[in-house]
Amino acid sequence: MIKINEHYHKLQASYLFANINKRVREFQAAHPERELVWLGIGDVTQPLPNACITAFHKAVDELADARTFRGYGPEQGYAFLREAIAKGDFAARGADIQPDEIFVSDGAKCDVGNIQELFASDIRVAISDPVYPVYVDTNVMAGRTGEARDGRYPGLTYLDCTPENGYAPQLPDGPVDLIYLCSPNNPTGATLSREQLQAWVDYARENRALILFDAAYEAFIRDDSLVHSIYEIPGAQDVAIEFRSFSKTAGFTGVRCAYAVVPKRCMAYTAAGAPVSVRDLWTRRHTTKFNGVSYPVQRAAEAVYSAEGQREVRTLIDYYLRNAAYVREALQRMGLACVGGDNSPYIWVQSDRDSWAFFDYLLNEAGVVCTPGAGFGRCGEHHIRISAFNSFENIQKAMQRIADVLQA
Amino acid sequence: MIKINEHYHKLQASYLFANINKRVREFQAAHPERELVWLGIGDVTQPLPNACITAFHKAVDELADARTFRGYGPEQGYAFLREAIAKGDFAARGADIQPDEIFVSDGAKCDVGNIQELFASDIRVAISDPVYPVYVDTNVMAGRTGEARDGRYPGLTYLDCTPENGYAPQLPDGPVDLIYLCSPNNPTGATLSREQLQAWVDYARENRALILFDAAYEAFIRDDSLVHSIYEIPGAQDVAIEFRSFSKTAGFTGVRCAYAVVPKRCMAYTAAGAPVSVRDLWTRRHTTKFNGVSYPVQRAAEAVYSAEGQREVRTLIDYYLRNAAYVREALQRMGLACVGGDNSPYIWVQSDRDSWAFFDYLLNEAGVVCTPGAGFGRCGEHHIRISAFNSFENIQKAMQRIADVLQA
Repeated sequence: MIKINEHYHKLQASYLFANINKRVREFQAAHPERELVWLGIGDVTQPLPNACITAFHKAVDELADARTFRGYGPEQGYAFLREAIAKGDFAARGADIQPDEIFVSDGAKCDVGNIQELFASDIRVAISDPVYPVYVDTNVMAGRTGEARDGRYPGLTYLDCTPENGYAPQLPDGPVDLIYLCSPNNPTGATLSREQLQAWVDYARENRALILFDAAYEAFIRDDSLVHSIYEIPGAQDVAIEFRSFSKTAGFTGVRCAYAVVPKRCMAYTAAGAPVSVRDLWTRRHTTKFNGVSYPVQRAAEAVYSAEGQREVRTLIDYYLRNAAYVREALQRMGLACVGGDNSPYIWVQSDRDSWAFFDYLLNEAGVVCTPGAGFGRCGEHHIRISAFNSFENIQKAMQRIADVLQA
Repeated sequence: MIKINEHYHKLQASYLFANINKRVREFQAAHPERELVWLGIGDVTQPLPNACITAFHKAVDELADARTFRGYGPEQGYAFLREAIAKGDFAARGADIQPDEIFVSDGAKCDVGNIQELFASDIRVAISDPVYPVYVDTNVMAGRTGEARDGRYPGLTYLDCTPENGYAPQLPDGPVDLIYLCSPNNPTGATLSREQLQAWVDYARENRALILFDAAYEAFIRDDSLVHSIYEIPGAQDVAIEFRSFSKTAGFTGVRCAYAVVPKRCMAYTAAGAPVSVRDLWTRRHTTKFNGVSYPVQRAAEAVYSAEGQREVRTLIDYYLRNAAYVREALQRMGLACVGGDNSPYIWVQSDRDSWAFFDYLLNEAGVVCTPGAGFGRCGEHHIRISAFNSFENIQKAMQRIADVLQA
């Protein structure tokens, strides 16, 4: 008899965005005349940079001609892209990452979800709360937790991110082995300072722990005191894997390209304590279960690093950052406490209301769709997330509507 | 301390194609003047169909304009592609598969590698020998085997495919729960008849087992007595998942698009014997660890189902089938026994020689790169695989060279 992986049944049933969509559909069915502004899901809205479009077309044309046709590429990604990444994203910031430490993939979600396969099933996992649900769910599916109780899984160490600690995960009381960090953070928009990251790197080195650093939103950082990569922190190469994406940087959410950095110095251990190269394990996983990213997509991603691409990407990010600043200032004028929105496309808004009630209120009264914080974990209660991924016109409209209902 | 998944260390070190490439590099270093013909790895060489190129460009242009821009798509794939697949690949052959039973992905290798996550770690897995290594390795990584002994993993049930049984896997003596079948087969090129597939479906139904049917090469079938989909076999929807790919069908090895079919009727079981929808489990896996296939790639794949696309794909496959027939007939004229090459791009050649010795002989004497059968399992010994994925001119040249050295 073919038996299922019963850990799947521990997953909590309702998926956040499915629940949001259901409430929105019901609202629209009842009020077909009302036009909504979506500031919910973190999806880009502006077109791809011209440099990417041009490179994309050129690569497609290469596939139309037997002389320039390419079949299977290297599973880890083409050298042209890995070299451009090493130079543009790391050497340019003083971080010594080599092309053969970079693994191109079709999404940071996939990488972040798959990476835990490399580790034993009885490791102790630490995650922030609120958190991107993929970190949690993939560990549940792998059997690293018990059955959920009151929205939390026994076996996980939750690092509460609250107004009191500035939404920054604090070092845990007990030992942990695998630590998920995300900065600029999804959902809170908060950033970790150089000193906070150094403390985590020191912790990992002292405890032979491993940090999974999700930097999908690094392109939104404009504050020069903040690092863009964890490898700007001394010692991080021994204890950290970094995840990056072209999704939010260059509008690739529908195009699909990302990468993981696994430095050669990064080690995990056998039960007997012998060090093992994590890069070698990931290479094995990547070459066994993955077959590389579409060639034209890799060419489009490479174009992000051209002079034209860099200018266009900066303009693109500036556009969303202007939205984010507008949202933050508008909400603060309404007397709402919030973080994020300066080095991040997300604004995390505190409220006395229950977060789903606040979501429903904004949907029903203002016609604005946000994301209820409770969907990201217990500490997300009494918060909502506002995304700056929309047109400036819609952002202005949404803020005006919220101001009208809150101040009515 | 961050501990590794020690099952990774059970994987046998040398990867087949890495070993081949090493031998070829050494040969080329010693004989820089010798030009090689590659009939090794199963990678296409002909350009993409025009219909796909046109659709690909059009979709890239949509991403250049805010009015037609698309961000995240459905993880399961766009409806336009799933509907085209359901109609073109299934309804057209009398198989009732609905669009919501189709999951678009970036590769059959990924799907075939990931699917085993849905099942318990103590299920009994049956694989053919010789076999596509991904079936084996992904189960080793998941801890379903012991340490390899003499090239085989305790815990797996091997189904020997030999000249004596026409290279067809036979029903096992003892019970098994998960069965990997591939037809037309990689590496042997052999096909399973309707009756043989019916016997496997009946076995699975009687034993509550599940069949993973890899049909990546179905487009090469020209024999009307053979099925293209396992869902042409009565009862298969209850007990089979099918994997398809655009890689070999339409030259997408570098473009990356494939799909899995998981019928709603397909069930697996809890330890207590309660049925669970496999489609629901795969939906959860797919939406949690995957973020959909590149939008322009899905449009290019959709174009395969247009009238122009169907004509072009048929021409493309005919090209490789002409190569395959040429190889098969040439080898038979040399007195070599072989299968495949009629409904498959692969020809599986029997030999008295050790398979790596035969590989080295063809490399050194004829300048032809093939794949040694032993790389696919114990039963691959005394065989080599010849791939028809090359130009007709190169195929002719390679056969002439082999004839010259064998008959010298």
